[in-house]
Amino acid sequence: MPLPTRRWFLASVGAATAALAQFGSAALAQVRALGAPVSGYGNRSRFERALRLFPQTRTPEATASFTPLGESFGIITPSALHFERHHSGVPEIDPAAHTLMVHGLVERPLVFSMDELKRMPSATRLLFIECSGNSSSEWLGAGAPSVQRTHGLTSCSEWTGVWLSTLLRECGVQAGASWVLAEGADAARMARSLPIPKALDDVLIAYAQNGEALRPEQGYPLRLVAPGWEGNVNVKWLRRIEALDGPAMTRWETARYTDLTPDGKARQFTFVMDAKSVITDPSGGDTLRGPGVHEVSGLAWSGRGAIRRVDITTDGGLTWSQAELQPPILSHAHTRFRWSWRWDGREALLASRCEDDTGYVQPRRQDLVKERGANSGYHQHGIQVWKVAANGAVTNGNG
Amino acid sequence: MPLPTRRWFLASVGAATAALAQFGSAALAQVRALGAPVSGYGNRSRFERALRLFPQTRTPEATASFTPLGESFGIITPSALHFERHHSGVPEIDPAAHTLMVHGLVERPLVFSMDELKRMPSATRLLFIECSGNSSSEWLGAGAPSVQRTHGLTSCSEWTGVWLSTLLRECGVQAGASWVLAEGADAARMARSLPIPKALDDVLIAYAQNGEALRPEQGYPLRLVAPGWEGNVNVKWLRRIEALDGPAMTRWETARYTDLTPDGKARQFTFVMDAKSVITDPSGGDTLRGPGVHEVSGLAWSGRGAIRRVDITTDGGLTWSQAELQPPILSHAHTRFRWSWRWDGREALLASRCEDDTGYVQPRRQDLVKERGANSGYHQHGIQVWKVAANGAVTNGNG
Repeated sequence: MPLPTRRWFLASVGAATAALAQFGSAALAQVRALGAPVSGYGNRSRFERALRLFPQTRTPEATASFTPLGESFGIITPSALHFERHHSGVPEIDPAAHTLMVHGLVERPLVFSMDELKRMPSATRLLFIECSGNSSSEWLGAGAPSVQRTHGLTSCSEWTGVWLSTLLRECGVQAGASWVLAEGADAARMARSLPIPKALDDVLIAYAQNGEALRPEQGYPLRLVAPGWEGNVNVKWLRRIEALDGPAMTRWETARYTDLTPDGKARQFTFVMDAKSVITDPSGGDTLRGPGVHEVSGLAWSGRGAIRRVDITTDGGLTWSQAELQPPILSHAHTRFRWSWRWDGREALLASRCEDDTGYVQPRRQDLVKERGANSGYHQHGIQVWKVAANGAVTNGNG
Repeated sequence: MPLPTRRWFLASVGAATAALAQFGSAALAQVRALGAPVSGYGNRSRFERALRLFPQTRTPEATASFTPLGESFGIITPSALHFERHHSGVPEIDPAAHTLMVHGLVERPLVFSMDELKRMPSATRLLFIECSGNSSSEWLGAGAPSVQRTHGLTSCSEWTGVWLSTLLRECGVQAGASWVLAEGADAARMARSLPIPKALDDVLIAYAQNGEALRPEQGYPLRLVAPGWEGNVNVKWLRRIEALDGPAMTRWETARYTDLTPDGKARQFTFVMDAKSVITDPSGGDTLRGPGVHEVSGLAWSGRGAIRRVDITTDGGLTWSQAELQPPILSHAHTRFRWSWRWDGREALLASRCEDDTGYVQPRRQDLVKERGANSGYHQHGIQVWKVAANGAVTNGNG
């Protein structure tokens, strides 16, 4: 990181902040009593209040909750704060009784127990999962007040499991098979079709997330993880894989998760999440405490590969400066970017724009609307603008 | 990953395992009711039981708890399961009232609030922290029955914070300063000295862990993170940094955390954690369910850099095979290794041996004892052997 020159911070923010040390002063709280003992499974501090937010609906079993990206750090999303989207709630599943059946156009249909899956060769990958409905509030301009509500349907975890290709190889995919159906054990029997080339490429059958078992709301004990593909395809509570000679045309790939275009036709099987970025700090709802240096930080990701570059504008896109990317920069994972901004105290329009390693550049929202119209609730990956007022208040600046 | 040949799994384990699918059978549990609704902050499944273990002592405020490495996946340790070592318990600190004072041999002593630290340039790194007392049970041979108790005082997290160098630069380190003292706000005032070159190199003042605020038992709201150096130096509940013209000689670097050698002298300031590895699966307490293919998996790390290579033996060190390393392979972080073992059902002595990118190779425990004696409770990083009996039972095989 290009370090700032000496004393840049104090010089930039003035006397209102970092205080000269008063030795022996009350600045050092005097804890004298023994603290809490060691414990089996830790909890966060009672002073921490970041929560997944969700709309108040009559069916909290069939809605979404949003990751508080405005209070995110690095690239890992804590499992407790990974976004949710359920179609019939979170089933409670005993892993000792759970199985995965692989059948259909295979030479040898098999049922795998959790124990069997865990003794097979495994792999671990850091991957984002983004709901294709993320940022749908922003199709027509400024829609939601905070980054949690504009972009909180993406999260990034370390996933561990077995390659789907290993299971399909074990069962022997027949020559006529071109798709597989993945079905969950929730009451909705949520099910999506994936083409065989993807299934044999990089799809994980994951049983662990961030170093422990999957969380219940992420599919415990087993979920499909399809790197870079829309969240809905990453079927949770996975219980069945069926090899087919075409897509199953479930309701989640016909009535839902298709993208209506202006001429009345719909784009279908739009699996890949395009390159996207957003500034998480500062973002809507924040207040900058006076002019001077503020770190600008955010997340970028692409379903097509790794992030190659992120630029920042403070004038609504007239001029851009390159942000620093925090290693490791991984394919199909969130990438953290940072940029030190010396705010002059005047109104600003702050935004980030990313480019992935295929050369694809995140578009302006208006250009995306020109190309695809605004009928679709899915795949809105345009540039997000935050407006900084002279008093430091940050609001949604999508025009 | 070199994929196994087709049908390797079923062929290797026989008919007792993966079952041919019975269509419409009871194998598919029939969940029909709505599940649980979305929630603000998630919890793990009630079927999961991995816990930090700790000895039953009269002072649970001044002991250690061990990460359940035998149930670990990937390289991230869940914050709830990160090992603990406290000297006077976990203080409860309100971040709004917490400050960090930087003083001593500096031109301009300063007190920083949490808000001030968070607007400064930040960095994120995936780093292991290992207690220098980890594996001390094994100095004299087989000491502890499980990998949790032999090696559970190491964990790996994603840490985010400000470089200590940024703060020292802001305060202006005087020419005579050669060490800094870092002091915690716990009742013990745990404090350690670090030489200035390390302090100006890669030391983080961390306020976040695995994407959210530090956990209380990891130093909430602020801890020092010294990549690759023994855990005790990574001072928690950090409240004070003092620039000095030599080490402070606190009790934690004189009466404790020094390594007694056979001639009665002690090694002092043995900061760096040497290259080390351990097989976590299978490990002591596990039982292999019959011959055939079993994935062997474990962790390797080095305080001197990145892991370059891990080898596995099943015959107590006569022959070795190279394991696969899971990317990303990061400096000063845990690295996950894997190896597919076709167990023939006979007694085996299973162990891993790592090499870091300085060329240092993890020694046999016996060779380490020859060099340093067995008086020290610290820095035992020898090869760990697990004995697999013909009935599949795995026990500590350190001879």
